[in-house]
Amino acid sequence: MPGYSGRVKDILEKLGAKIGCRVRLTLSGNIFVEGLLMPKHEFSAPDIIVVKLSNGYNIGVSINRIQNIDVYDCKSFAYTGEEAQVKIASIQPIVKILGCGGTIASRVEYETGAVKPAMSPSDLLDLIPELADLASYDSEVVFNILSEDMTPKHWETIAKNIYKAISTGVEGVVVTHGTDTMSYTASALAFAIRNLPFPIALVGAQRSSDRPSADAALNLLAAVVTTLKAPFGEVVVVMHSTPSDGEAFAHRGVKVRKMHSSRRDAFQSINDFPLAKIDLNRKDIMLINKRFIPRTKNREETIAIIGFDEKIALVKAYPGFQSDIIDFLIDKKFHGIVLEGTGLGHVGSYAIESIKRAIEEEIPVVMTTQTLFGRVNMNVYTTGRKLLEIGVIPGDDMLSETAYVKLSWVVSQTRAMEKIREMMLTNYVNEFNPIHTSQHFPRWL
Amino acid sequence: MPGYSGRVKDILEKLGAKIGCRVRLTLSGNIFVEGLLMPKHEFSAPDIIVVKLSNGYNIGVSINRIQNIDVYDCKSFAYTGEEAQVKIASIQPIVKILGCGGTIASRVEYETGAVKPAMSPSDLLDLIPELADLASYDSEVVFNILSEDMTPKHWETIAKNIYKAISTGVEGVVVTHGTDTMSYTASALAFAIRNLPFPIALVGAQRSSDRPSADAALNLLAAVVTTLKAPFGEVVVVMHSTPSDGEAFAHRGVKVRKMHSSRRDAFQSINDFPLAKIDLNRKDIMLINKRFIPRTKNREETIAIIGFDEKIALVKAYPGFQSDIIDFLIDKKFHGIVLEGTGLGHVGSYAIESIKRAIEEEIPVVMTTQTLFGRVNMNVYTTGRKLLEIGVIPGDDMLSETAYVKLSWVVSQTRAMEKIREMMLTNYVNEFNPIHTSQHFPRWL
Repeated sequence: MPGYSGRVKDILEKLGAKIGCRVRLTLSGNIFVEGLLMPKHEFSAPDIIVVKLSNGYNIGVSINRIQNIDVYDCKSFAYTGEEAQVKIASIQPIVKILGCGGTIASRVEYETGAVKPAMSPSDLLDLIPELADLASYDSEVVFNILSEDMTPKHWETIAKNIYKAISTGVEGVVVTHGTDTMSYTASALAFAIRNLPFPIALVGAQRSSDRPSADAALNLLAAVVTTLKAPFGEVVVVMHSTPSDGEAFAHRGVKVRKMHSSRRDAFQSINDFPLAKIDLNRKDIMLINKRFIPRTKNREETIAIIGFDEKIALVKAYPGFQSDIIDFLIDKKFHGIVLEGTGLGHVGSYAIESIKRAIEEEIPVVMTTQTLFGRVNMNVYTTGRKLLEIGVIPGDDMLSETAYVKLSWVVSQTRAMEKIREMMLTNYVNEFNPIHTSQHFPRWL
Repeated sequence: MPGYSGRVKDILEKLGAKIGCRVRLTLSGNIFVEGLLMPKHEFSAPDIIVVKLSNGYNIGVSINRIQNIDVYDCKSFAYTGEEAQVKIASIQPIVKILGCGGTIASRVEYETGAVKPAMSPSDLLDLIPELADLASYDSEVVFNILSEDMTPKHWETIAKNIYKAISTGVEGVVVTHGTDTMSYTASALAFAIRNLPFPIALVGAQRSSDRPSADAALNLLAAVVTTLKAPFGEVVVVMHSTPSDGEAFAHRGVKVRKMHSSRRDAFQSINDFPLAKIDLNRKDIMLINKRFIPRTKNREETIAIIGFDEKIALVKAYPGFQSDIIDFLIDKKFHGIVLEGTGLGHVGSYAIESIKRAIEEEIPVVMTTQTLFGRVNMNVYTTGRKLLEIGVIPGDDMLSETAYVKLSWVVSQTRAMEKIREMMLTNYVNEFNPIHTSQHFPRWL
C-alpha cells in the first residue's frame, strides 16, 4: 500500500483493498465517492485515502469523513462511476484549475538537487484534502514550463483557456504559475479578460511542494477560497501575506510585484492595497481594499480581447545609459518602448534625441519609474517637461512591468499613435491608483 | 538691507551698516567673524546676519550669539581678514562641501513653475545657520547638473575632488547631489575611494530648498553631523528616515536605493540596515548597523582607484525579452552586461544562447534580481544552473544598480575575464551582506 501508514493502512488491508481496486466511500450527507484506489504521496496528510475519479482527477478524502468503504473489482480498470460523480458535482461548485508550471508544480530532482517542473494540478489536490470540502475540481495542464520561459504568446493561451472555462460555466478559476513572472501574467490576464463573473486567482509557491516548508498547500487553498468567495471580479495573485501559515493576501494583478527572491511573502502590492486577506482557518475573505471591480452577474458581459504584441521592449535608464540602445530598437522596428526612468520619470537629457526619433517613427514610448513607489510626474523638472513635449506617455503610478504588458496589449489592437496614447492613459482595471496614502509605503525599521 | 527684517534690520541700520560693508562680529569664547555683510535670502532664518568670509564662502550667524558688531570700511571690497579666519578655523573642523547639482541646489522658476538647478553650496549655508556651530565650511561647485545627466565620467570627477579634499586635511566631506541617481554615485565613490578617514556623506533633497516642505536643511545638517561624528569610514547617503523632520538615516552607499518618486523618506536600505540614525536635536549619531568599515586613522592609507568604463549595459529581463538586445550589445562591443533577472536570477532559456555568445566574446555577464530583496541563487533551478555553467557571474544580494557601477569600475581596471569574475565576487565595501534576517524585509500593512 504505497504511501499509506497507520490506521488507514490497517483499514485498507483488512478490507483486502489494493492499489487499483475500485472503491466506494460513503460519506455523511449521502455523498458517495467512487473510483480507483491510488497510491498516496508520503508527504500528504496521513489520514487520507486517494481515489481517482472517472474524469481522471484524484481526490483525497479524510478517513474521518468516511462512514463506510466498499471494495469492488480489484482487477478491472474499466470503470465508469458516473452516478457517484454526479452526486458530488451536484452539491459542490466546480473550480477549473489551469496548470501553467512553476515551483507549485515542481519536485526536487534527487540526483542533482535541482528543482524541475513535474506535478500536475491533480497531484496538488492529493496534497490538500481540505480542497475537497470547498468544491469539485476540473484540472488541466495548459503547459508545464518554467516561469522565466513565459512569453506574451503564453499569456494568450492562458487567457483563451480562462475564457473557455468561464463560458462552460465553472464557478471559479485558479491558475497555478511560476512565481518569477506571475505578476506579468496576472497583468496580461487582467487586461485581456474583463467583466469577470468571479476573481481569477493566480497562485504559485516559493518552495517546491515536497519540501517541509512548502507553501503550495496554503496558497492553493487560499486561491480556491478567493475565486469562490471574494466579491470582486478581478485577476488576483494569491500568496502568503506573512512568512507564517494561516493567512494569505489576494493582490490586484496589475499592482503586485515579486519583491523577494525567496521569502514566502515575496508578493506585495505596490501603490495599492491588497484586495483581501484570506483567513485559512475560517476559509473566508476579509476585504481590505474597497476600491474594486465587482463580479459581473451576467457571464455574457465577460469580454475577451486577447492579443499581445511581442515587439515591445522594457528598458531601464541609468547614469551613462547608452542611447544607441534606443536607436537599435528603432532600427529593429520595435512596436513600443517602456522606459523605467529615474525619480519622477527622467532619463539623461543626452538620450532625448533618440527618444524623439522613436516617437517620430511612430514607436510609442511610455515612462515609468524605477523607484517603484510613487508616481511619475514629468511637469516638475526640465527634463520631464522636454520628454512630455516630444510625446512621451507618462505611466502615472503603474509598475514598469504592468506598463510593459499594457503596451503589448494596446499595440496588438492599434498602431495609431493617438489611440495608443488614449488607451495607455485609460484606467482599465485599476492599473492606476488615483489616491496614495502614507500606508501605501512600507515601513522599513 | 535686502532680506533683513525686524530686530536685525534695526541693529544694522543703527550701526550704519550697508550690504558690502566690512563687519567684525564678536561672539562668545573670543571668536571673531570678519567679512563683508551680505544680503540675506528672505526664506532663511530671520535672526541671522550673513557675512562673506575671505575664502569666498558665506556664513550665517545668529544675532543671539553676537556680543558686538564693528562696522569698518563700507566702500572698499579689498579685504583680507586672515586673522579672524584663522581664529575660527582653529576651533572648528573644516568640512568640504562639494556641490554636484540636484534639487538640493535648485529653485522654482517662477515663470514656468519648473524646478531648475541654481543655488551654490554657500547659499545652502545661509539657509541653515545651525551649521556654523558644527564646523567651518569650504564649499565648491564641482558642477551643477541634473541628477539624470550624471554619467560615469562625473563619478570620476567627484571622486577626484573627494580624494583631493581628503589629502588637504579636511575633517569631513559632504556631497550635495540630485536624488534620482544619488545611489549610483554613492556606489561609485564607495568602490573608488577606500580606507576613508571619515564618512563621505551624499545628501540631496526631495523638495526644492525654497519650498515650505523643504527637506534640504535637515538633510544637510544630518550629513555634516555624520561626516564629523560617525565612527565608520564608508560612503553613505544621508536622508530623512521618516516623512517628518527630526531624524535622518545614514545608508550604506552600495546598499541604498531611491524607493519613492517623491517622499522625503524615499531612500531606504535594501538587504542591509542603515548604518546609523542621526538625531537632529542632539546632533548626534546612533549606530544601527554594527557591521561597518571603521575610519582609517592614517590618511595615507586612503586609496583611490578612480575609473569607470562607459560601455557597460544594465539590462532588465521580462517575459518575451528579445535576446537580440544582447546580440546588439555584443556587436557593439560592449565591455560588460548586468542582467536584472527574475526571481533567484533567471532569464528566459531562449536567451541563453546569446548570453553564452557574449561570454565567449569576453564580455562579462553578471546576474542580479529584479525582486530587489533577497539574493540570487542560481543553483536551485535548471535555468540558473545553465547560466552558471556558461559562466554568468552571480551578483548575490547586490542591487542591480550597484552591480552595474561595480562592473564599470572593475572593467576599467582589467579586461581579463577571470580577474573580472574574481573582483566581482570580492566583497570590497559590504556590497554583499552575508546575513539577511526577517528585519531586512519591510512590513507592508
